[in-house]
Amino acid sequence: MNGANTAFVLTSSILVLFMTPGLAFFYGGLVSRRNVVNTMFSVFFICGIAALLWVAFGYDLSFNNNIGGIVGTVSHWFLGGLNLAALTTNKIPTGVYMLFQLMFAIITPALFVGAVVGRLRFNFLMWFIVLWSLFVYYPLVHMVWSPHGLLAGLGVLDFAGGTVVHINAGITALVLSIFLGKRLDYGKQEEHYNIPWVLLGTAILWIGWYGFNAGSALGINNVAVQAAITSTVSTAAAMITWMVLDIIRTGKPTLVGVCTGTLCGLVGITPAAGYVTVAGSFWIGLIATSVSYLWVNVIKGKIGVDDTLDAFGCHGVSGIVGSILTGVFATKAVNPLVTHEGLIYGGSAHLFMGQLLGTVITIVIVAVMVTAITAGLRLVVRMRVDEAEERTGLDMGEHGEAVDYTISLSAELDAFKEDTKDVMTFPDEFKGQLGRFDTTTTNLRERPTKSH
Amino acid sequence: MNGANTAFVLTSSILVLFMTPGLAFFYGGLVSRRNVVNTMFSVFFICGIAALLWVAFGYDLSFNNNIGGIVGTVSHWFLGGLNLAALTTNKIPTGVYMLFQLMFAIITPALFVGAVVGRLRFNFLMWFIVLWSLFVYYPLVHMVWSPHGLLAGLGVLDFAGGTVVHINAGITALVLSIFLGKRLDYGKQEEHYNIPWVLLGTAILWIGWYGFNAGSALGINNVAVQAAITSTVSTAAAMITWMVLDIIRTGKPTLVGVCTGTLCGLVGITPAAGYVTVAGSFWIGLIATSVSYLWVNVIKGKIGVDDTLDAFGCHGVSGIVGSILTGVFATKAVNPLVTHEGLIYGGSAHLFMGQLLGTVITIVIVAVMVTAITAGLRLVVRMRVDEAEERTGLDMGEHGEAVDYTISLSAELDAFKEDTKDVMTFPDEFKGQLGRFDTTTTNLRERPTKSH
Amino acid sequence: MNGANTAFVLTSSILVLFMTPGLAFFYGGLVSRRNVVNTMFSVFFICGIAALLWVAFGYDLSFNNNIGGIVGTVSHWFLGGLNLAALTTNKIPTGVYMLFQLMFAIITPALFVGAVVGRLRFNFLMWFIVLWSLFVYYPLVHMVWSPHGLLAGLGVLDFAGGTVVHINAGITALVLSIFLGKRLDYGKQEEHYNIPWVLLGTAILWIGWYGFNAGSALGINNVAVQAAITSTVSTAAAMITWMVLDIIRTGKPTLVGVCTGTLCGLVGITPAAGYVTVAGSFWIGLIATSVSYLWVNVIKGKIGVDDTLDAFGCHGVSGIVGSILTGVFATKAVNPLVTHEGLIYGGSAHLFMGQLLGTVITIVIVAVMVTAITAGLRLVVRMRVDEAEERTGLDMGEHGEAVDYTISLSAELDAFKEDTKDVMTFPDEFKGQLGRFDTTTTNLRERPTKSH
Repeated sequence: MNGANTAFVLTSSILVLFMTPGLAFFYGGLVSRRNVVNTMFSVFFICGIAALLWVAFGYDLSFNNNIGGIVGTVSHWFLGGLNLAALTTNKIPTGVYMLFQLMFAIITPALFVGAVVGRLRFNFLMWFIVLWSLFVYYPLVHMVWSPHGLLAGLGVLDFAGGTVVHINAGITALVLSIFLGKRLDYGKQEEHYNIPWVLLGTAILWIGWYGFNAGSALGINNVAVQAAITSTVSTAAAMITWMVLDIIRTGKPTLVGVCTGTLCGLVGITPAAGYVTVAGSFWIGLIATSVSYLWVNVIKGKIGVDDTLDAFGCHGVSGIVGSILTGVFATKAVNPLVTHEGLIYGGSAHLFMGQLLGTVITIVIVAVMVTAITAGLRLVVRMRVDEAEERTGLDMGEHGEAVDYTISLSAELDAFKEDTKDVMTFPDEFKGQLGRFDTTTTNLRERPTKSH
Repeated sequence: MNGANTAFVLTSSILVLFMTPGLAFFYGGLVSRRNVVNTMFSVFFICGIAALLWVAFGYDLSFNNNIGGIVGTVSHWFLGGLNLAALTTNKIPTGVYMLFQLMFAIITPALFVGAVVGRLRFNFLMWFIVLWSLFVYYPLVHMVWSPHGLLAGLGVLDFAGGTVVHINAGITALVLSIFLGKRLDYGKQEEHYNIPWVLLGTAILWIGWYGFNAGSALGINNVAVQAAITSTVSTAAAMITWMVLDIIRTGKPTLVGVCTGTLCGLVGITPAAGYVTVAGSFWIGLIATSVSYLWVNVIKGKIGVDDTLDAFGCHGVSGIVGSILTGVFATKAVNPLVTHEGLIYGGSAHLFMGQLLGTVITIVIVAVMVTAITAGLRLVVRMRVDEAEERTGLDMGEHGEAVDYTISLSAELDAFKEDTKDVMTFPDEFKGQLGRFDTTTTNLRERPTKSH
Repeated sequence: MNGANTAFVLTSSILVLFMTPGLAFFYGGLVSRRNVVNTMFSVFFICGIAALLWVAFGYDLSFNNNIGGIVGTVSHWFLGGLNLAALTTNKIPTGVYMLFQLMFAIITPALFVGAVVGRLRFNFLMWFIVLWSLFVYYPLVHMVWSPHGLLAGLGVLDFAGGTVVHINAGITALVLSIFLGKRLDYGKQEEHYNIPWVLLGTAILWIGWYGFNAGSALGINNVAVQAAITSTVSTAAAMITWMVLDIIRTGKPTLVGVCTGTLCGLVGITPAAGYVTVAGSFWIGLIATSVSYLWVNVIKGKIGVDDTLDAFGCHGVSGIVGSILTGVFATKAVNPLVTHEGLIYGGSAHLFMGQLLGTVITIVIVAVMVTAITAGLRLVVRMRVDEAEERTGLDMGEHGEAVDYTISLSAELDAFKEDTKDVMTFPDEFKGQLGRFDTTTTNLRERPTKSH
């Protein structure tokens, strides 16, 4: 065993696990105060369900054997009989690779929760996660990351999960939000529950992403270091790009904006992290976030899809852009695994067209499968909460929990306003009445009698 | 020095330190808005006091020399003269082992704070921590983890601190809450200050627990990787178990519930983490959390002990279950240090009875010592705040700090309601009066004069 | 490449990056609810801008070649042509050293934001960061940490950035707050937005500081372990010192207090971390935090400078004390790089006077340069927001974002009070009127006619 590599990938796994609650804070901070618990719950419980599915059969379906380049076979139920100590190429135990991959199986479905907040029944989500893991995620992992996989055979470069994680989650988000329809108060400016939670989520996601991207080198080496550097630069470029675009468009840079930009930069660099130079990562961050900005602020509104927290707008759009730009900026100077140079290095269009093809295939597979699963599951499990619950909020509706004590403070103020309504109905009359009492009907008041 | 092992244990130490503020957020989010600062303070200041006690004499009392298998002796006041660079069996410096253990000496007393929130005087807590470290924690560490220790000699398996940390903290919590008595508003549904803080605490605790459990291998090796995997699976199983139990019992899964379940899974696997298979960890998580669920939701109420935030219900109960189940699921197939197989592997009852014995001895030692310390300290330092302070809350009472600005908003609303009470006393009369003015006493109102 | 060293420094880099959002939470929790978004934004966006400047030319200006011991030269624009895989003395790639240093270039300017919250225009801050990085930070890094640097030649010991980071940021904070002038409501007790955020920031800063201090050994070795231990002990001593001083002075320990103390301990040990014993670190923590306590609670008020969140009081003061005390407690018994023993070890005054000199030179350089930059920039960009914006708060003024939904709740309560003002104007008259109606003017009310 290589101790340094193993410690590095184990630490990376922990960092990737941290991303999922990070995402819960990011999404939870953005929604209205009536849907915070439900949003956070929907993201966080995936840590449990996806981990169990992964050790039960997911790892085997992804990496054990091969059926037609599409999926594996289950021979180690709950990892029984699997030699977790067997060493991989980088001399890390299979166990730590399995754990690292387990964390990816958690964060990916958590990403698309952002598209469906405030109206999806928890019961539907629970079953959807199971089916989606089985029919979308494990096959896609097998196709891209198993040596026997179909897409791996096409030579598509995907360093840390641009296709498997981000495009996948983004397209799933888009399909789900189309099926689900808009929120009742769609178009109304949503009041964010709490912006510091958005920042916390962003910070944790950024930190965790080093595990995601650098850890994808599956050992501590120059590619891991390069991935850490390019991830930092792309993110910085994306954050400042969003900020500048906000200043140009509205005159004011927003914290929610730079947080969103930060995420777009991380998403954009993911497929390219170990293949591009520092300058390359700068351009990827800048371009990916610009396209996401355009989508979120202009295109989305015209299409009218209610991707509530921009799960597609951020992960889908920046994921697609990053995946294609990998064909522009990848270079064997950074990583010898790049066999055809990117466009910018005067490469033929071979790599670029491959990236384009891989991206399109991923989009199609996910769109078709998610449509099938959703359409089928809807026949058995009701998808959307009823109108009354949506108005009350899913925190009380699905969980019976108010997010914090100020919710009751808010209710108290509302009740008090209701109580005072009778008095408040005629404030002017009251004023007038008092004023008149003071001047004309002095006999009703105890006054000095000089006015008589 | 083995660089990889040293870096791994140092990183693990940092992760374990992170757990204590994590616990502050977990507990702080659960209490009422009047006791948040006090709860967080009580947990966080232990990072300072326990660290100082540890380097001053705690490390020596735990690991230096031996008096009757019960405790060590102090010969390196503030670690003076101790060779921190001396290598242990795993070729890590003694200094990093000392630091790793220091973090355990912090988190353990922090755990029992959850039982006494809202009514314990800070002054009492401060002295209690000192005495408890001296007379309970260091001896227990010596007995279990020093090669000369009494319990170590019994062959009790405790991978990462089921007895020393969780049963110890749980029993201490129980004894303290019995001495302290119930809160004045015991039985009243507590309104949680802020549930996202509970989730944050849970996330940080989970993350940090990899340092706690995997780090307890004291090096990066297959046992460390196994411990990381079993911790993940036990936690996932526990989280989903609590969720399902909640759905069965109340129809609604709660975020506070899955967070509590998550913790129970982490506690349950702690003594077993490096000794059991993936399937074993699944069952430990499921069973430990089920017993804790039963305790918290059924038994606790019948006994009537006010273990406010379930420090015993979670750490004590799941700790005991995990410690005993180690005798069921431990196997030398996972770790050669397991000399007698667990029950499930057809082992004799040797290991199982040993675990049972070790658990009972720990419970008895802690219960006796904590009772003695508490009874003694109460003679010198008043334990409980007075009634007025308890009603106002310990945030203002002990610290003079309101947890956030909404506390004054809340006070403002209350004051406003008080101000308006006079007007609000007769809202119906007001309505009636106005109604009558409109119809019968027209001379009191400025109306078109046609009625004259 | 040494894998363990590289993994350790990469992990340390991630930890240092985490410190900057940590600082955003620390500062954001302390300010009033009207300036939280702006404070957090001002800290967080530096992650983007400083990272871009660093890779564009900052790394080269700091470490590439040498002009008179003062600054380097730019030959690798955006790191182009730099061999990131070249190994340093500790066999870590240059890339990971560059990334580690990048994180320092982010956190240092973020520190001084604490002095200027609530009144600095964001536009000014943005340009100031650029100029300050160029004319203050890169030269100082070169002078202290480049082998060709002027201050490095003086034999000044600065383990992890006492001069470059903390004194630098502290003095910058002081100069900026003098230029900027006091807040309009200076002297009024500020109501902290949310204390748990302060604790979260402190916890993250503490965790991250292990990367900062231990990581500054640039490899995993005994010095790194020693730095981790001394950082822990200094911090613990400082936290408890501040708590005790609070108890002595006001009778009540505060959470904001122990958090501030914690930071002072971390700052104080920074220049000394790898050079002193455990006992030495205890005294440094105790003394540094005591001097900061004195400054914050006594001296600052007399001088009347509005260093709003004590960026100077904490980082400047404890940084200066720690830098000087390094000359008292450093010993070659801990680190052979200490060529002259500290005062306490009977060394000549050589080291002590060197530390004093280095500290004074740093203060003078920073004070002069920051004064020049600020005075110059003010001619081009307006520095302070106007009075109306300051009263409204910079959250709405600079960003158009309210920090959380309770802000509108608060506004709602205010509006409601305004609405009810007319009725509330004469509450006594109303009561009197009703009372009188009941007894004397019975004809105005529908009553049983028996009173006639």
